[in-house]
Amino acid sequence: MINVVLLGAGNVATHLFKAFTNTEAVTVKQWYNRNLKTIAEYKNKVAITDNLEDLVEADIYILAVSDDAIADLSEKLPFTNRLVVHTSGSVSLYAIDKKHKRGVFYPLQTFSKGASVDFSKVPLCIEAHKVKEDFSILKELAEAIGSQPHKVNSDQRAALHLAAVFVNNFTNQIYRIAHEITESEGAEFDILKPLIQETARKLDDLSPFLAQTGPAKRNDKKTIKKHLNALTNAHHKDVYELLTQSIQKTHSPFVNPKAKPNK
Amino acid sequence: MINVVLLGAGNVATHLFKAFTNTEAVTVKQWYNRNLKTIAEYKNKVAITDNLEDLVEADIYILAVSDDAIADLSEKLPFTNRLVVHTSGSVSLYAIDKKHKRGVFYPLQTFSKGASVDFSKVPLCIEAHKVKEDFSILKELAEAIGSQPHKVNSDQRAALHLAAVFVNNFTNQIYRIAHEITESEGAEFDILKPLIQETARKLDDLSPFLAQTGPAKRNDKKTIKKHLNALTNAHHKDVYELLTQSIQKTHSPFVNPKAKPNK
Repeated sequence: MINVVLLGAGNVATHLFKAFTNTEAVTVKQWYNRNLKTIAEYKNKVAITDNLEDLVEADIYILAVSDDAIADLSEKLPFTNRLVVHTSGSVSLYAIDKKHKRGVFYPLQTFSKGASVDFSKVPLCIEAHKVKEDFSILKELAEAIGSQPHKVNSDQRAALHLAAVFVNNFTNQIYRIAHEITESEGAEFDILKPLIQETARKLDDLSPFLAQTGPAKRNDKKTIKKHLNALTNAHHKDVYELLTQSIQKTHSPFVNPKAKPNK
Repeated sequence: MINVVLLGAGNVATHLFKAFTNTEAVTVKQWYNRNLKTIAEYKNKVAITDNLEDLVEADIYILAVSDDAIADLSEKLPFTNRLVVHTSGSVSLYAIDKKHKRGVFYPLQTFSKGASVDFSKVPLCIEAHKVKEDFSILKELAEAIGSQPHKVNSDQRAALHLAAVFVNNFTNQIYRIAHEITESEGAEFDILKPLIQETARKLDDLSPFLAQTGPAKRNDKKTIKKHLNALTNAHHKDVYELLTQSIQKTHSPFVNPKAKPNK
């Protein structure tokens, strides 16, 4: 049984609370938030508090708060030498006050408010300052909610967080541009959804290098020109040109003689 | 029962052949290819030929050949006034010689060699020059293989084909850049796969406009700066900057006072 105190009331905190209360292997002993109202609806399920002085003893204190609040909150915790972790992708482990045993418990996924989360689809990137002492309980905590734990160092976590911006925010913006293009001709964006799904699914079989197809990869100048002429929005043109260049940098031995697959 | 003659031997032709032979509603009466060797392995299942003069009568002739070959092949067909369709996303309906009844049967999906295709996940964009006469049989053909037929005009098909380059080729290149970023720190690209899947899946619930999150949308300058500093590859920086701008153009009322969701 792992005893946890949860701090913060955003998406990550709320989804973790629900996952923890769904498994017997974890007990949330207390839930802290600066503003008690935000978590008042859970008061029949867990002890809630807005007073750091009231915090009870637990195996792990999880700071699921905004990046900027981590350092300050960790410093204000009225105890020492207990395991305190944050859940951020981009904040250093060392942002946590050094009076604590320090760690990171970073769920690499996009969370929506309201929607329930299947933690079997949420990889957990785990860092522990003292690996031998503290890694195993964080791994157990991840496994208790059905997550796949991954041991990463700070540089790897930063790289994953940055790469996540590409595959989540930037990919979604590519979808948005496609939406603008289809709507401009009154075509249904929904017709693209199976292709969007298959593009993501293909990574189960192939690396993105090997999965690439299309006019940029083939250097099909005629189609590329046709597409650029068809794009009436100057910004869409810029994105088309830069990503076409990007594909050609990756795949053309003339542009980049070192181009080779990772896998 | 729909009788079909198939022309061409690429991915689309091969996947269509397999789908047609799996349904009793369609008979492939003949399969033509310029080079007979390519389709020789199917000779026990279907009549094959490399001679256009030998083509038999059928309800639909499907030109599943490269874009550049469509006009020429359609002109060489030794008959008139039969329904001839091509399968291209970007070629005009009028590329087909006007001696024929003309149409388009464009499967909007990415096909891999070898892998079997579930046509229930392949939308078919259908165009018929004479809609009243020819649309319904093309719709039936799509439905016979389990596809969702969509009636589109040429402009809509061109927009869908262009948008498909964004959601397929460009999205895949974004995955590739993410792969380069994770590998540069020895982090596992695979940890990103559930996020990639969820980013695509989210479109079932939300438009790309409403699904957007992250530092660019929040205009979180501190994180954006941190990311730009972390990107050692100048080209990755260019992509980060342009797509961050793109998100801000879409979402910031200061940059674009007309920014509003499509849905």
